[in-house]
Amino acid sequence: MAENLLVQRVDAIRRLARRGHAAPLAKVIAKSRAEDLAAVLGHLTAPEQRLVFANVKDDGMAAAVLTSLQGDDLLHIAGDMPPERFVALFEHLAADDQTDLLGRLPEELRESILQRMQGEAREEVEELLGYASDTAGGIMSPLAFRLQDNLTCRDAIAAVQEAADHELIYYAYVENDDGQLVGVTSLRNLLTHPPSTKLADIMSTDVLSVRAETDQEEVARVAAKYDLLAVPVVDEARRLLGIVTVDDVIDVIKDEAAEDMLLMAGVRETEDEPGGRVRNALRRLPWLTITLLGGLLISELISAFDGMIKAEIVLAGFIPIVMGMEGNVGIQAATVTVRGIATGRIDTGVARAVGAEVFNGLFLGVVFAVAIGGYCLLRFGEADVAASVAVAVITGMTSASLVGTLVPLSLRRFGVDPAIATGPFVTTAMDGVGLTIYLSVAALLLS
Amino acid sequence: MAENLLVQRVDAIRRLARRGHAAPLAKVIAKSRAEDLAAVLGHLTAPEQRLVFANVKDDGMAAAVLTSLQGDDLLHIAGDMPPERFVALFEHLAADDQTDLLGRLPEELRESILQRMQGEAREEVEELLGYASDTAGGIMSPLAFRLQDNLTCRDAIAAVQEAADHELIYYAYVENDDGQLVGVTSLRNLLTHPPSTKLADIMSTDVLSVRAETDQEEVARVAAKYDLLAVPVVDEARRLLGIVTVDDVIDVIKDEAAEDMLLMAGVRETEDEPGGRVRNALRRLPWLTITLLGGLLISELISAFDGMIKAEIVLAGFIPIVMGMEGNVGIQAATVTVRGIATGRIDTGVARAVGAEVFNGLFLGVVFAVAIGGYCLLRFGEADVAASVAVAVITGMTSASLVGTLVPLSLRRFGVDPAIATGPFVTTAMDGVGLTIYLSVAALLLS
Repeated sequence: MAENLLVQRVDAIRRLARRGHAAPLAKVIAKSRAEDLAAVLGHLTAPEQRLVFANVKDDGMAAAVLTSLQGDDLLHIAGDMPPERFVALFEHLAADDQTDLLGRLPEELRESILQRMQGEAREEVEELLGYASDTAGGIMSPLAFRLQDNLTCRDAIAAVQEAADHELIYYAYVENDDGQLVGVTSLRNLLTHPPSTKLADIMSTDVLSVRAETDQEEVARVAAKYDLLAVPVVDEARRLLGIVTVDDVIDVIKDEAAEDMLLMAGVRETEDEPGGRVRNALRRLPWLTITLLGGLLISELISAFDGMIKAEIVLAGFIPIVMGMEGNVGIQAATVTVRGIATGRIDTGVARAVGAEVFNGLFLGVVFAVAIGGYCLLRFGEADVAASVAVAVITGMTSASLVGTLVPLSLRRFGVDPAIATGPFVTTAMDGVGLTIYLSVAALLLS
Repeated sequence: MAENLLVQRVDAIRRLARRGHAAPLAKVIAKSRAEDLAAVLGHLTAPEQRLVFANVKDDGMAAAVLTSLQGDDLLHIAGDMPPERFVALFEHLAADDQTDLLGRLPEELRESILQRMQGEAREEVEELLGYASDTAGGIMSPLAFRLQDNLTCRDAIAAVQEAADHELIYYAYVENDDGQLVGVTSLRNLLTHPPSTKLADIMSTDVLSVRAETDQEEVARVAAKYDLLAVPVVDEARRLLGIVTVDDVIDVIKDEAAEDMLLMAGVRETEDEPGGRVRNALRRLPWLTITLLGGLLISELISAFDGMIKAEIVLAGFIPIVMGMEGNVGIQAATVTVRGIATGRIDTGVARAVGAEVFNGLFLGVVFAVAIGGYCLLRFGEADVAASVAVAVITGMTSASLVGTLVPLSLRRFGVDPAIATGPFVTTAMDGVGLTIYLSVAALLLS
């Protein structure tokens, strides 16, 4: 739904809800798509949300709405729903969506829902809950469409016609007698070969697959690189456990991009997580505290040179620009490196990447050293200060580019998400290094 | 291919290429996937790239490799390939991939390839080239699988069996007599209804579609929100022009996320664009120049207060921390806002978003004012400086949060990508505002 339409829908639904017009409200709701309704709910207050959700008459739609709700909204609407109602709505959801919803509910509610679920459905969900949520196992659906390799195309088409659970079949996966994944074929392929052809003769045996414990980012990379609509997930014996479908791949790519960007700015929440205003604000504390500690060290550093600064007060005016130039060139290097790691471009070209960034730092350092040093000389006529500024800008911008490239690469080597500490650490470290160079050079030249 | 495997493959292929071992080289290449080979090529020098590509014996694979090459690599390998060779390889590509390749080649080469293409194929590509590359029309494939609404399921299955062009059929789109898109159905649906059923009776009439001129970001949002494998593209009369498939949607989402992140760091290139080292470095200039100008203004501001700073030198030591705290809280607010705009969460909740960020700024401002002011008082015993620091931190962090939220929102209102200027403008503006408050309050208290 386009943005202006969404706003109109929110207004209409809110008005109907507030006035208690249940019949027209139910009508507007029935005409909406579940995804749109979930978006509308995101803009209502908790009591309005519950009132609107109570007027979703169709269980299939109600279930779809629940899976599309973000963060707090799910708890506002469904946090006090009876477990039996969940079990009824789960009938309309695939096992991976059930698992995803259960994972987002409080433990107590989750347990009482599980207790009320039927044997097989419950086993399936409990198995999925056993995988870490950011792995292939955690996002896969067990609903892969499987066929035995000794079937003919005719048998296979009959199997498709009987597979009521599989609303949309992406690929048909072919298994051998040991249940191992040995091939893949498309629905169309089954139709274009003579009915008596064996699957083993028409299937593609070059099947890409991932293991259940594979990180979801890696799964997304495989799907995106090879343009797959679904990635099969197998166990250590190559038995098919399920598939990760492309809609989940898209969610992973979007979430990881958002996470990277927020992490680089030192924001740890996704704004979708529950929590009040103060708790939200406190989530910003870590980076700001690093900034605080770095800033206090810098105040000590400046205080150590205060006699010199007092004697040559022009020095003070150029502290911010020296720090700013290198901070920014360092952030640019870090951002490009984090992106390069994410896209796989830096995989085998570490030396080339570091070289390119150091060149950038050195080249831009010389450009800006001339500009800032020249300005300092012309404006204040202080050759010593101008020289200190120039030396500090060149060495500072070069080392900032080096550090900005090496920090994310090192973090990755130690298994830490490169985006996590790139922003805060690089800027704080750069501030200290650059200022130390500036004041030391000045001390040398002025003494 | 996993990262370590890719490194091994690069080494093996490079070694064979350097030693001129053509036969084993061709063998390794034939065993690779096109996407992997393109990734390998990305790590070779231009002469190595040409040598390896010359040993891709299968035209279908060579064509697939070309479409997977990034930036410069395409020009190194194919920049001097004869137009006739392109025309031959194009036989193995869909029209949207042909168009994409042509759009990345120099104009002269593009024209001479087009001249050599056959009538119908050429018309198709020329029509696609007519759409802006970042719109639905620019990324769509004309290969939508179409059926007339008066057909039966039996006819439709026969059509599927004859549609040799459509390797993988996503959905079957149903058109009425006027060629308008009136419904959609799945291949499986055709198989599970009696053969004589009319498509009009089993199709879903609730078809989401976009217009050819729709921005590609909006297309991606539609596909992601409604979990579609393909989005139909229609003209103003609702006639089906083509489909945007989910693999292109994934590319859009990845590119836009990368673009946002790089733009926020003031980097305008994607590292995939052509250009030498100096040209790459110069792409970083714009933000750094804003930083330079802001820094020079700040040096003037400090110079205007130099008498006071000289008399109370402790003031100088707290300039960086005051600027750093607000700069970072401003970046956090801006990043969250840019993400909120991208995900659509802020659409109807502008006031709530601004309120939340101002609260963050004020709350965190008080926390850090106490910390930094307290430190200043205890460490240097200067009550006036401590009070100035505290006031500057509170007002600065609050206004930085406000500006950090309002700048991206305003940019969007004026149709500018919110990510473009968020980083540079916010930090530079914040630096100036915060420092002015700090020095003015100090001047007031110390006078």
